[in-house]
Amino acid sequence: MNSIFWIVPLCSLVALFFAWIFFKSMMKSSEGTPRMIEIAQYVREGAMAYLYRQYKVVGMVFIILLLILLILAYLGVQNPFVPVAFLTGGFFSGLCGYLGMKTATYASARTAHGASKSLNQGLKVAFRSGAVMGLVVVGFGLLDIAAWYLFLNKVIFTPEHLTNGLHFLGLDFVHPGTTPEQKLVEITTTMLTFGMGASTQALFARVGGGIYTKAADVGADLVGKVEAGIPEDDPRNPATIADNVGDNVGDVAGMGADLYESYCGSILATAALGAALPAAALKATGMEQEMAVIAPMIVAAIGIIFSILGIFMVRTKETATQKNLLNALLLGTGGSSVFILLAMAVMAAIGWITWGVFGAVIIGLAAGVIIGQATEYYTSDEYKPTKGIANQAQQGPATTIIDGIAVGMYSTWIPVITIVLGIAGSYWAAGGFEHFAMGVYGIGFAAVGMLSTLGITLATDAFGPIADNAGGNAEMAELPKEVRERTDALDMLGNTTAATGKGFAIGSAALTAMALISAYMEEIRLWFGKIAKAGQGFVEIGEYVFYNDVAPAVHDSVKAIQISAASVKDFSAAYDITLFNPLFLGGIFVGSMMAFLFCAMTMKAVGRAAGAMVEEVRRQFREIKGIMEGKATPEYAKCVEISTRGAQREMLLPSLIAIIVPVAVGAVMGVAGVVGLLAGGLTSGFTLAVMLNNAGGAWDNAKKYIEKGNYGGKGSETHKAGVVGDTVGDPFKDTSGPSLNILIKLMTMVSVVMAGLTVTLSLM
Amino acid sequence: MNSIFWIVPLCSLVALFFAWIFFKSMMKSSEGTPRMIEIAQYVREGAMAYLYRQYKVVGMVFIILLLILLILAYLGVQNPFVPVAFLTGGFFSGLCGYLGMKTATYASARTAHGASKSLNQGLKVAFRSGAVMGLVVVGFGLLDIAAWYLFLNKVIFTPEHLTNGLHFLGLDFVHPGTTPEQKLVEITTTMLTFGMGASTQALFARVGGGIYTKAADVGADLVGKVEAGIPEDDPRNPATIADNVGDNVGDVAGMGADLYESYCGSILATAALGAALPAAALKATGMEQEMAVIAPMIVAAIGIIFSILGIFMVRTKETATQKNLLNALLLGTGGSSVFILLAMAVMAAIGWITWGVFGAVIIGLAAGVIIGQATEYYTSDEYKPTKGIANQAQQGPATTIIDGIAVGMYSTWIPVITIVLGIAGSYWAAGGFEHFAMGVYGIGFAAVGMLSTLGITLATDAFGPIADNAGGNAEMAELPKEVRERTDALDMLGNTTAATGKGFAIGSAALTAMALISAYMEEIRLWFGKIAKAGQGFVEIGEYVFYNDVAPAVHDSVKAIQISAASVKDFSAAYDITLFNPLFLGGIFVGSMMAFLFCAMTMKAVGRAAGAMVEEVRRQFREIKGIMEGKATPEYAKCVEISTRGAQREMLLPSLIAIIVPVAVGAVMGVAGVVGLLAGGLTSGFTLAVMLNNAGGAWDNAKKYIEKGNYGGKGSETHKAGVVGDTVGDPFKDTSGPSLNILIKLMTMVSVVMAGLTVTLSLM
Repeated sequence: MNSIFWIVPLCSLVALFFAWIFFKSMMKSSEGTPRMIEIAQYVREGAMAYLYRQYKVVGMVFIILLLILLILAYLGVQNPFVPVAFLTGGFFSGLCGYLGMKTATYASARTAHGASKSLNQGLKVAFRSGAVMGLVVVGFGLLDIAAWYLFLNKVIFTPEHLTNGLHFLGLDFVHPGTTPEQKLVEITTTMLTFGMGASTQALFARVGGGIYTKAADVGADLVGKVEAGIPEDDPRNPATIADNVGDNVGDVAGMGADLYESYCGSILATAALGAALPAAALKATGMEQEMAVIAPMIVAAIGIIFSILGIFMVRTKETATQKNLLNALLLGTGGSSVFILLAMAVMAAIGWITWGVFGAVIIGLAAGVIIGQATEYYTSDEYKPTKGIANQAQQGPATTIIDGIAVGMYSTWIPVITIVLGIAGSYWAAGGFEHFAMGVYGIGFAAVGMLSTLGITLATDAFGPIADNAGGNAEMAELPKEVRERTDALDMLGNTTAATGKGFAIGSAALTAMALISAYMEEIRLWFGKIAKAGQGFVEIGEYVFYNDVAPAVHDSVKAIQISAASVKDFSAAYDITLFNPLFLGGIFVGSMMAFLFCAMTMKAVGRAAGAMVEEVRRQFREIKGIMEGKATPEYAKCVEISTRGAQREMLLPSLIAIIVPVAVGAVMGVAGVVGLLAGGLTSGFTLAVMLNNAGGAWDNAKKYIEKGNYGGKGSETHKAGVVGDTVGDPFKDTSGPSLNILIKLMTMVSVVMAGLTVTLSLM
Repeated sequence: MNSIFWIVPLCSLVALFFAWIFFKSMMKSSEGTPRMIEIAQYVREGAMAYLYRQYKVVGMVFIILLLILLILAYLGVQNPFVPVAFLTGGFFSGLCGYLGMKTATYASARTAHGASKSLNQGLKVAFRSGAVMGLVVVGFGLLDIAAWYLFLNKVIFTPEHLTNGLHFLGLDFVHPGTTPEQKLVEITTTMLTFGMGASTQALFARVGGGIYTKAADVGADLVGKVEAGIPEDDPRNPATIADNVGDNVGDVAGMGADLYESYCGSILATAALGAALPAAALKATGMEQEMAVIAPMIVAAIGIIFSILGIFMVRTKETATQKNLLNALLLGTGGSSVFILLAMAVMAAIGWITWGVFGAVIIGLAAGVIIGQATEYYTSDEYKPTKGIANQAQQGPATTIIDGIAVGMYSTWIPVITIVLGIAGSYWAAGGFEHFAMGVYGIGFAAVGMLSTLGITLATDAFGPIADNAGGNAEMAELPKEVRERTDALDMLGNTTAATGKGFAIGSAALTAMALISAYMEEIRLWFGKIAKAGQGFVEIGEYVFYNDVAPAVHDSVKAIQISAASVKDFSAAYDITLFNPLFLGGIFVGSMMAFLFCAMTMKAVGRAAGAMVEEVRRQFREIKGIMEGKATPEYAKCVEISTRGAQREMLLPSLIAIIVPVAVGAVMGVAGVVGLLAGGLTSGFTLAVMLNNAGGAWDNAKKYIEKGNYGGKGSETHKAGVVGDTVGDPFKDTSGPSLNILIKLMTMVSVVMAGLTVTLSLM
């Protein structure tokens, strides 16, 4: 093993150390008045209660999946490490969510207290707390990767085991006679599967959190703001604590789990593609096989160091204006990106990676920035699309909705074209048509590059909801108006920096999914090699696997394996992944449908959970006397409980469908169907997610634009229409849209993990 | 030429003859009171004014496209017949729209007059007028096909020209030494391109008509019904004539052009696939090549006879109830379907088609019925989904919208699964993996079978809008209330039978698109054969074309052509249509985006055109004194003019994009990109269209359900929320959704026609 690898666990520990430092420093600052502490306590308890319940449900799902994976391992169609890898992925993802949310709930009152002194003070507390989340995610993500890599290298695939094999508990851990090349493939494909644990955890976190936060939000708004006419975050509103809890479980824990999954997924997929790089491509580009595997990890490790540097760069003078703060943040994120690029240039210069791969990363970063800017254009009230929605709101809710949906649909064109150019560009830069495998490796590396500074970009994402919560705390604790204004300013600042962050998140998700689909084919090849009997055969031409019904007499770049005629037909159906295979086209259809079906389910879930919340808030206003005069305390916990229960109940079905469908498609439609499913899910899911996110964002800001006094301002008919748009947009942008990203990757991960089963069934 | 072919032109003439008979018989019935005649006159003039304007704009687009096609023909990258074929397709489609609409506008007052006597009398007039539309479409469609087939067979590809070639006006019409097999391929691929003329005409008709009808509808509703509080179709409403014109141009002319295009497209695509059936497949199944080409035309011809029979079967006693009428209609459509199946069984028994193809048609018909039933379930107020929307309307417009979108998204699953099973099933039944080309031929034939009884199914579709218009006429002419009730009953009856019709339309569109994509690959192969220089080469393995970078030393089922190394790389990129070609995946992305972008454009267009209409109606109410008291006549023509101008202006951009994008993708991303574009457009477009159609239908019926007195009935807050849903649904179900069907097929047709250009560019 190359000793440079040790930098990976080292940097992950550095990340965790600084997370601890930032946490301690945040905890040292004052939490403010007793009232502020009390409110923060309510929110913290609600959030933790939710998380415990969530983990109980997810834990049961994990146990069931674990049992299935164990059975498959004993049947010989599953790598025996997978059940454990699956568990660690899920465990660390859950741990990050727990720690990140704990930090956020401790930080809100402290941020409000900081903001009561100065804008800069508020930023410092919120941003450092966001950084805890960022560093915990990258730290544990990379630690998990490093630990597995070391364990598999040092304990399992030892030279002795490679020669003699490792048989344990009736399972075949290492085949006797495994070559060093096969060893790297085995290690990386094993590690890839821990991504399924992270994806499963992430989907539950996103869907559950998304349902929770929107049910609480809609409940608080519809009854509190609209019916009772009391302001946002008013302590008389029974759903107000649940609403603040929602920001934590949805925007903090959900987003953390999402990006944990993207981060690990991109590194693991790229490592697996690196292990599968053919000798010819390595020879032509001068890369080493082992370095191709650990290079993405090393880039991630270096990225941690520059992220921490960037976090320290975010500081301004005490009298900082909004603009100073924004520049400080941009300096931090932009600076760490520039440094990581320089570091990669050095890696390319000494031959650890190729210049082509370096080019792929630059293309990936550019794609992320462009998508972020396009998001900003279509959702900010400074530009025509959002202003147009506000204008249409004058004619009532119907035109508001039509225009918002049209804006969301329009807004898909830049991200889609950018992603197409990004995929084709990084493919071409890294390898092109000459070295297909190197090209796909480049696509994966572009995603790794985009996420390498996640430590700081996640901090800029996460401090927004913390500031939002601080605002709630300030409102309920009746702090002076200027405190609320400052936390609002921080919240808005977060939204601005988050636009680029979102571009990176969605762009890297698409690139990672593309890399994962390629990794899926590697996995299929691997399993086919293991399962196909001697005497069966197929043909590889160039980089592709094709069925051939006669003895393959082809040139030397084609490896030929003999297979029996009996399974040839199934094999053909399974591997012939062209449009003229109806199973492939059928798969694309099903993938496209899955995106819509999943959205329908999550939207319906929000509707049902919000309905229950509306009932409860109405009941409290009706039954608890003196609540409106502020004399009686509402039953906050009851609302928290209802949102929690609703989210738990509703998140199960859509999440399970995301796990079951790829397996079912694999069983019924074979490999071609699965590849079609993943392609259709990726393309439709991406487009639909952009549409939902941007329509939701544009409605939100159109409403705010009206509230600034345009077209009649607050309370006018136009404003009412704007509120309808905003309410429709809530599940679009905070539940269904963000969940689609994970749906795409989870379906791919499940396909990868279940590849052995699919191959076995296709050969039966 | 097989003499059985003469049945095709004969039956097309029979269709036109009966259309003329039905038209005459309708014209003989009385148009009612002078007031009724006057109103019908207004609507007729408005509709015709629209059509003339529409054809002027479309005519200019056709002239430009004609010039481009001529230039391409002179450059040698376009078949020299294409420009003319393109024109005839467009011309006949336009003629059908003209005749169908003329009939409909003559029939409305007569239907109202008939309904003033009895329900059955009203049905008879409306249904026979709808039948004129149905028979004109199938008659001219098949006549165009037959005329071209005869002309190419008898005049162009004569034995003498096959030997010596035909060179004329500097263009190469027939290559010297063309074999009889090549002749059939040349003829069918030439004819296929007249589908592009029909598709272009259809897209303009659907988009323009859709924008017109919704602008008028929204204008009439928002100002007339909501603001002024006067009932539907009230003569005091200035937009009421425009609204009635809209039913004609949108639901009659638009739908007619749409189905003309599907009808011709399915027959032509299947004929082209028949001409390309490899000798081995024909030998194995016992079919003849020429019969494979003319079989779809013969089935269509026989279908005409049974359609006419079915039309005569639709009659009941004078005292017929609603249920009697429905049964009569179902007997007519169902009966003709059963007869056509029997006829095809006979064809299979005597070996004109295979039993496998027969099976494919049965599977196609079953798919159509299932999709129709699913549509019924998700949009009828008798079932849970639509009732659920009405229930959610109690909580206001926002929840109405969210629930409706969720219902629309949910509703995609049955149609998608059905289409996947339909494609895979008819592929498997007709040929399966053994005879790939035969399987695809079966998919095309399934679409032909579904559309073979279009003569009568289109009649059941078209009589709904005629009855709707008759209702408007009755209202404005102040006929007794029972007349309106009868026309409403007829309208509802039309909606019920139309559900299955819609299932057939959307199902056949998907199957046709699938067949067209396969025909596209045939066209690419053909052009590659013509354009690729000697010394260049590629490999076909089985049914596929693959690039091979070494001298192909492959078995005898593989034809190998030598090509130079120079163009090998481009060729590889162009033809390597697997998911691992980033251009293919990029194409899927762009196709998916196109569906969303196109919807955004058409929705925005409706918004803008409706806005202009709202302004105008408000102006008339404000400026014309005595309008509300019924003393002054509103300026109906002004509103007609505004809708017409708005529709014409707004239809250009989306339609042109649908034509330009496939060419641009072909130029930039090659063949793989185009195939990806078509696959992505088909899958996302189909899913999105189902979602839009069903969400719109469900909102419409949820509103009607509330109006029946549920949840507070008319005038309640719940009803207002329902109206918002209905208004949002209008452009969903009547503009964007239906246009998507044509978008998919037009993009495929354009790709087929521009195949020569794409191949030339890919080889440069």
